[in-house]
Amino acid sequence: MTKDDVEVAEHHGGSDYAAKDYQDPPPAPLIDGEELTKWSFYRAVIAEFVATLLFLYVTVLTVIGYKSQTDPTLNTDQCGGVGILGIAWAFGGMIFVLVYCTAGISGGHINPAVTFGLFLARKVSLIRALAYMIAQCLGAICGVGLVKAFQSSYYNRYGGGANSLAPGYNKGTGLGAEIIGTFVLVYTVFSATDPKRSARDSHVPVLAPLPIGFAVFMVHLATIPITGTGINPARSFGAAVIYNNEKAWDDQWIFWVGPFLGAAAAAFYHQFVLRAAAIKALGSFRSNA
Amino acid sequence: MTKDDVEVAEHHGGSDYAAKDYQDPPPAPLIDGEELTKWSFYRAVIAEFVATLLFLYVTVLTVIGYKSQTDPTLNTDQCGGVGILGIAWAFGGMIFVLVYCTAGISGGHINPAVTFGLFLARKVSLIRALAYMIAQCLGAICGVGLVKAFQSSYYNRYGGGANSLAPGYNKGTGLGAEIIGTFVLVYTVFSATDPKRSARDSHVPVLAPLPIGFAVFMVHLATIPITGTGINPARSFGAAVIYNNEKAWDDQWIFWVGPFLGAAAAAFYHQFVLRAAAIKALGSFRSNA
Amino acid sequence: MTKDDVEVAEHHGGSDYAAKDYQDPPPAPLIDGEELTKWSFYRAVIAEFVATLLFLYVTVLTVIGYKSQTDPTLNTDQCGGVGILGIAWAFGGMIFVLVYCTAGISGGHINPAVTFGLFLARKVSLIRALAYMIAQCLGAICGVGLVKAFQSSYYNRYGGGANSLAPGYNKGTGLGAEIIGTFVLVYTVFSATDPKRSARDSHVPVLAPLPIGFAVFMVHLATIPITGTGINPARSFGAAVIYNNEKAWDDQWIFWVGPFLGAAAAAFYHQFVLRAAAIKALGSFRSNA
Amino acid sequence: MTKDDVEVAEHHGGSDYAAKDYQDPPPAPLIDGEELTKWSFYRAVIAEFVATLLFLYVTVLTVIGYKSQTDPTLNTDQCGGVGILGIAWAFGGMIFVLVYCTAGISGGHINPAVTFGLFLARKVSLIRALAYMIAQCLGAICGVGLVKAFQSSYYNRYGGGANSLAPGYNKGTGLGAEIIGTFVLVYTVFSATDPKRSARDSHVPVLAPLPIGFAVFMVHLATIPITGTGINPARSFGAAVIYNNEKAWDDQWIFWVGPFLGAAAAAFYHQFVLRAAAIKALGSFRSNA
Repeated sequence: MTKDDVEVAEHHGGSDYAAKDYQDPPPAPLIDGEELTKWSFYRAVIAEFVATLLFLYVTVLTVIGYKSQTDPTLNTDQCGGVGILGIAWAFGGMIFVLVYCTAGISGGHINPAVTFGLFLARKVSLIRALAYMIAQCLGAICGVGLVKAFQSSYYNRYGGGANSLAPGYNKGTGLGAEIIGTFVLVYTVFSATDPKRSARDSHVPVLAPLPIGFAVFMVHLATIPITGTGINPARSFGAAVIYNNEKAWDDQWIFWVGPFLGAAAAAFYHQFVLRAAAIKALGSFRSNA
Repeated sequence: MTKDDVEVAEHHGGSDYAAKDYQDPPPAPLIDGEELTKWSFYRAVIAEFVATLLFLYVTVLTVIGYKSQTDPTLNTDQCGGVGILGIAWAFGGMIFVLVYCTAGISGGHINPAVTFGLFLARKVSLIRALAYMIAQCLGAICGVGLVKAFQSSYYNRYGGGANSLAPGYNKGTGLGAEIIGTFVLVYTVFSATDPKRSARDSHVPVLAPLPIGFAVFMVHLATIPITGTGINPARSFGAAVIYNNEKAWDDQWIFWVGPFLGAAAAAFYHQFVLRAAAIKALGSFRSNA
Repeated sequence: MTKDDVEVAEHHGGSDYAAKDYQDPPPAPLIDGEELTKWSFYRAVIAEFVATLLFLYVTVLTVIGYKSQTDPTLNTDQCGGVGILGIAWAFGGMIFVLVYCTAGISGGHINPAVTFGLFLARKVSLIRALAYMIAQCLGAICGVGLVKAFQSSYYNRYGGGANSLAPGYNKGTGLGAEIIGTFVLVYTVFSATDPKRSARDSHVPVLAPLPIGFAVFMVHLATIPITGTGINPARSFGAAVIYNNEKAWDDQWIFWVGPFLGAAAAAFYHQFVLRAAAIKALGSFRSNA
Repeated sequence: MTKDDVEVAEHHGGSDYAAKDYQDPPPAPLIDGEELTKWSFYRAVIAEFVATLLFLYVTVLTVIGYKSQTDPTLNTDQCGGVGILGIAWAFGGMIFVLVYCTAGISGGHINPAVTFGLFLARKVSLIRALAYMIAQCLGAICGVGLVKAFQSSYYNRYGGGANSLAPGYNKGTGLGAEIIGTFVLVYTVFSATDPKRSARDSHVPVLAPLPIGFAVFMVHLATIPITGTGINPARSFGAAVIYNNEKAWDDQWIFWVGPFLGAAAAAFYHQFVLRAAAIKALGSFRSNA
């Protein structure tokens, strides 16, 4: 919380690379054929599939359960559900739990936008990124499918947990909300997994999944009234496939373009402003110690 | 959060066992007579009894208190209770606190399904598993009994905190909800206590009880409208014994079969997919470094 | 989460004391005159006073603010307040924050029942315990006094944040609820501060203030409908002094006797069952390795 | 949680400075020209700007979204929003996430009152403090501006997220509420970042951003009914600039004077009472070991 950390970091991050007490891993190759021969790759893809399935199952079930409990035509108890606060907790809390469980297996992405941001920063290979995204989308479809199977009578009546623009908001607003929301999430992911972090300041230890989950929780509090909150293309796609409603498909592009732009902005901000990759490459703009 | 962790883990988890920086403990014996001669065994059984008692006492008291405060025949303030969100917090938060308190004494199961999953993975002996389950069920009965003693006038009127299938859902849905809910919980328990974990990635440190409590919180948000959420046979059994209602007993099997199947699935997923026990045994399917 | 931790702990906690990797501090003297000559003693007493003042200020202000916002005679928005869930968060969250802030200064008691429990376990001297309790009660009075000064028109109308037995509950129930609630809190405090803990299992690291805060949160969810939840004699006493209502004074004994009995039970459970002080003293009942 | 920590700390903090296992950094210079030549300084200012922008964007969007969803003229579902509890979570949770993300870059102030407190304690230079405050205010204006752009039809109707004194409270109460609320926040910041902390007690490890976020959450629960809760002059200023309402400007001074006085009180309390700077300087009032 003080300038001193910055100074220390500055010192270690300066041009005297031998003094660094952390190591940036080399950029991941675009195409790494050897990955495909390892069980750990397939295990990671399976873990992403299962985690996204569980994520959509729990969250969409919470949404449908809330709406059925507070429907004034069925029930007089308008306060009888978990509320939008509970829905926001469901999304944020599941991301906390699932990132915690899968971080060591697959990196705990559970979100194509996160995978895209880490790919742009050369943290994962192109092959791995594509395999993760496909697994995430399939997992999301299966997760929402389970909810429809369990809640047959309620699922379609209460909007299927699908993302779409709320009445009174134009497409630009929805796109902007998705961009900034995903920026918050992917910025937190980059901050939490920065290799510079653990080396730097002993008084800010890292429990990475908790702030990532909270970032998701926060964005849901803010943008549920606007778009229902996507910030995760697999979540929006899975719900659209199972709900299969024209409005959900019409707005679907917002929930791919927005999150990918937001993730790209966060990757750029972290790599080129906070880590100052460009400036380091030029080797200038600083007074050496 | 990056591929590199996986690579490192792969490297360390490969066939060159001398390079591993962690140690899998040997499987627990099925029957370990020596355990019975140690005070630590009885202390662990007592701790499971007390923890399950406190768990049921706090959670069922929250349920009954909420229902008495929002009953329209008694009270005009329909929003005057903690809500389903508060009930879900009570279950998840108590598991967090109690796993934290008992983890070092008994392993912090507080749930026969967790004990069953850890027994299947050979983490506890058969004798210990049975003793824990009996202690958990007795503790649950005593905890709910305390609530009935304190809330005599309200306890039976508001359903006794017992689990049963909500109207409009069939038995298959209830069973499925219990299986997947327990899978989420036991999968988190396995992930949190994996000995590979602490050795592996320094940027995902472990505060095990918090994600376990959150997993319970999340599952309650999603499935309270369907079954009231069991995912813990002792919790369902204790409430059924004290409430002693025909409907609660009729559905009771769901809250034993579902959690045990879910725990078995999580044990299988963790041991055979994520840890790849079968593949390691075959010693194949990987390119050595 | 497995038996192995217990075994390891058992091994280290056995009769071969040289092998222990932790050190139980010697019991605190009953009367330690030297304490009174040190600035750290007075600083700790001041820190307890300030922390209890802030605790009562924030929590009672939350209670009064909630009641004024949802009063149907003033406001048609019955859902416009933080709810009982928000009140429970206020109590639990402030304990988390304040224990975190004062743990290194005074031990972070902020509650005469916690001080009493730690005194019984010989963790603090009698002089320190008495000084803490007086500081806590004075701090609580000042904190509630600030609320009354700020909320003059609402403070008395909405019950002054005082604890008393809700209609329909007898004194035995209220006493029992306070005993068990304080047991949950003080049991968590003992578990979190056990010197055996940090030495034992590396996969259950300790963030002590968080489970302590959650224990307070949980107990409030469960017992606000019964007694308003004391489990802290300074909190009940401070509100009673400022509110100065006959009913609050009539029930006041419950909020001293209950918490002190609960704290004594937790100290007994931790010292004689979990740590097995009596059995270790006898030096028997175990098979040495 | 025991006296022993205090004793140990006392021992290490005594006059025998060679025995200390921590190091107080030297006070920051008032004006440090060299800072201005380093990229880390500009990077920190940018990070404060971005963090405050995201903070105001998410929180004010939550406030406006909540009010539009529960407006009885638009919507019959009075309980359909996140509630004041959700708004308090938005403020506290965003501070947790953003302090976590920026702690290693800028120190994670995101609040001119925090910057002022740390400046008084000589943790940051005057130049850095002024640059941070300007960046924070500009970021806040941009963040609220985004909300107005996205919520054009609702922004002005629902009060623009601006702070002002609620009806029925006088200016003294509002000022007092801001002073004490900021004291709670800045006291937590000082406690979390004390260099004595990590050296001292291994059983109270430090996850600094979490209690800081909780402190903000708690203060919002307590004082939203009085002032809407400022405790952050940039937050109040940014909303006033965009909302540009006479009442918001009339009360604006409260949200600068209150937080700065509260931060000064917390800096004084931490430096002169808890760390006993004055007494150490006098080198007296203690019995050496």
